[in-house]
Amino acid sequence: MLNPFRKHPELIVHGAHPLNAEPPLPKLRDNYLTPQDLLYVRSHGDLPELDGEAHRVAVEGRVSRPLSLSLADVRALPPRTVRAVMQCAGNRRADMRGVRPVKGDPWAAGAIGCADWTGAPLAAVLEAAGAETGDGLHVAFTGADTCQPSDGGAHFGASIPMAKALDLDTIVAFAMNGEPLAVEHGFPLRIVAPGWAGVRSPKWLSTVTVQDRPSDAHQQAGDYKLFPPDMRPDTEDLSRGITIDAMPLNSAITEPAPGAEIKAGRVAVKGYAVATDRPIIRVDLSGDGGRTWVQATNEDHGDARWGWTFWHGTLDLPPGEHEICVRAWDAAGQTQPALPDDTWNFKGYLSAAWHRVRVTAA
Amino acid sequence: MLNPFRKHPELIVHGAHPLNAEPPLPKLRDNYLTPQDLLYVRSHGDLPELDGEAHRVAVEGRVSRPLSLSLADVRALPPRTVRAVMQCAGNRRADMRGVRPVKGDPWAAGAIGCADWTGAPLAAVLEAAGAETGDGLHVAFTGADTCQPSDGGAHFGASIPMAKALDLDTIVAFAMNGEPLAVEHGFPLRIVAPGWAGVRSPKWLSTVTVQDRPSDAHQQAGDYKLFPPDMRPDTEDLSRGITIDAMPLNSAITEPAPGAEIKAGRVAVKGYAVATDRPIIRVDLSGDGGRTWVQATNEDHGDARWGWTFWHGTLDLPPGEHEICVRAWDAAGQTQPALPDDTWNFKGYLSAAWHRVRVTAA
Repeated sequence: MLNPFRKHPELIVHGAHPLNAEPPLPKLRDNYLTPQDLLYVRSHGDLPELDGEAHRVAVEGRVSRPLSLSLADVRALPPRTVRAVMQCAGNRRADMRGVRPVKGDPWAAGAIGCADWTGAPLAAVLEAAGAETGDGLHVAFTGADTCQPSDGGAHFGASIPMAKALDLDTIVAFAMNGEPLAVEHGFPLRIVAPGWAGVRSPKWLSTVTVQDRPSDAHQQAGDYKLFPPDMRPDTEDLSRGITIDAMPLNSAITEPAPGAEIKAGRVAVKGYAVATDRPIIRVDLSGDGGRTWVQATNEDHGDARWGWTFWHGTLDLPPGEHEICVRAWDAAGQTQPALPDDTWNFKGYLSAAWHRVRVTAA
Repeated sequence: MLNPFRKHPELIVHGAHPLNAEPPLPKLRDNYLTPQDLLYVRSHGDLPELDGEAHRVAVEGRVSRPLSLSLADVRALPPRTVRAVMQCAGNRRADMRGVRPVKGDPWAAGAIGCADWTGAPLAAVLEAAGAETGDGLHVAFTGADTCQPSDGGAHFGASIPMAKALDLDTIVAFAMNGEPLAVEHGFPLRIVAPGWAGVRSPKWLSTVTVQDRPSDAHQQAGDYKLFPPDMRPDTEDLSRGITIDAMPLNSAITEPAPGAEIKAGRVAVKGYAVATDRPIIRVDLSGDGGRTWVQATNEDHGDARWGWTFWHGTLDLPPGEHEICVRAWDAAGQTQPALPDDTWNFKGYLSAAWHRVRVTAA
């Protein structure tokens, strides 16, 4: 049952060990549901090649019936399919580098994708284990992957609060778009915690622990925190970091590409927008760096609480250099900040300012 | 049972007919729960002085048992108290006037307040009436107030989608902070639709109609829409307006006051922040127009899904002129845009950029 790693030849590889790669943006925009081989890969160690029949997930901690679940056991539970965006907390980090240096891989806007994830609700697994489900509890996960020394060295670990664990849309997933998970996406089982940063959806799931505190693994306790803009690497103070869970309103231009030389006149612009669990109500496009705006057309994908929105529009661009910008609005009338500096933090997380692409029209 | 109008002498009155008034910001910040006589008043016509015993609310439309409810009937249902912010869609409109002209009263940051609202869940009223509750339905309200000709002339009317109507936190309220509603706040009964613009919480409630479309009253069909930034009064096109429901992330400085002359050194800054149904995770303060930031202290009010957050902090301000700014972050890692221009629209709604106060320190 081993599922071979099928890296798409066009993936942009930021690092091979561990493998961190994202798709070219035009490719990402080709399909509302991102194919597995085009979904960004974020890993913290070598990709574990697990045996889908032999692998077990331990469910333990504050449970009355500890479990050792096989893939077949999870498949035997009533399945649930959730259409959800998965994105890295560092998506669009590259845009922050122009402000001040940031740590971490320089993700463009491709560390994101949307898929139909199928699995068993985590709530059903917790119920089968007779888990306590009080408000102050957390559900901690570990993966079978061993992280690089710089990422804490131990097994990957993260946790979510009980309320998120009990949301029926949080699942123990065994399939992406109807296919078994690929090795790089967590075969045989991963968590999918919709709307939240990918770090809270561990891959190669090996333990699920109900406990009275967040995970003390490096990915929960020592990283993936939003630090204030006055902090630098040499003044890092974990107590001032806020755990990154839900991801903010964001949007990106997938075409034209940065630096593109295009034909002057009516220029087609395409991209995506996403807003945690809120619908996108409007997308604005500017051809002059945000001085004036026109509205893009949001494509209709039906209602998907955790999905993204594809949009397209046109700008009239005379010959010359132009800065194309996009900003989205969510159903609470919220829009994005204008400048990368507005959300800058030295770890480069939550980069969600207007996306800007400079082009030359001739 | 008539409840006399008790306007606080310090309210800032934007207009007397209809009455539109807001409290001074330091007063607003004195109490986490805004006293009735300090809550902003937004009205569209003369304040109806209704007889609390004789008044009836008709529940009609797609219902199997039309009702005519008295205040006593609503009080007889199992009560629910919801701690929720009420705010005008035009709160902070004044900040947009510096960009380009806007229509409407120049609200400062005081067209907002937070209270414990007590009433019966609207869902219970709908159930008692045997209402249809399908997804595509709307619940339309009218008030007993007759609007000014410029506001459509007819009775005030607005609607909410069925999903919002069935949220148990949406109530037919008869009390604010444990007191009967004051005349200016809707005596004897009003809707409270938490997290949404005040326009969706009609006062002096007189009809509740279950129907297959939004209300066609002026306040729903012809006003309270978010228009794009390229639209002007002479190009108004209702089809391009988006109905304003939920309100965005916002924050404001309540002290010091704009133009204040203060003592140089450590300066105390206070204010509020609010984020629809999300917790506020951090509030940043700047004494130099947003170049550098420090964090304010969020005060602990317990968990209130629809409440606001009071914060306080200090800035070190040398002698001279300074621009103090505040911006808040919500639990999805979302923050506010920097400039009033970033959300500008000619109706002046959803003014939610960083709040800026200029002071002189000596």
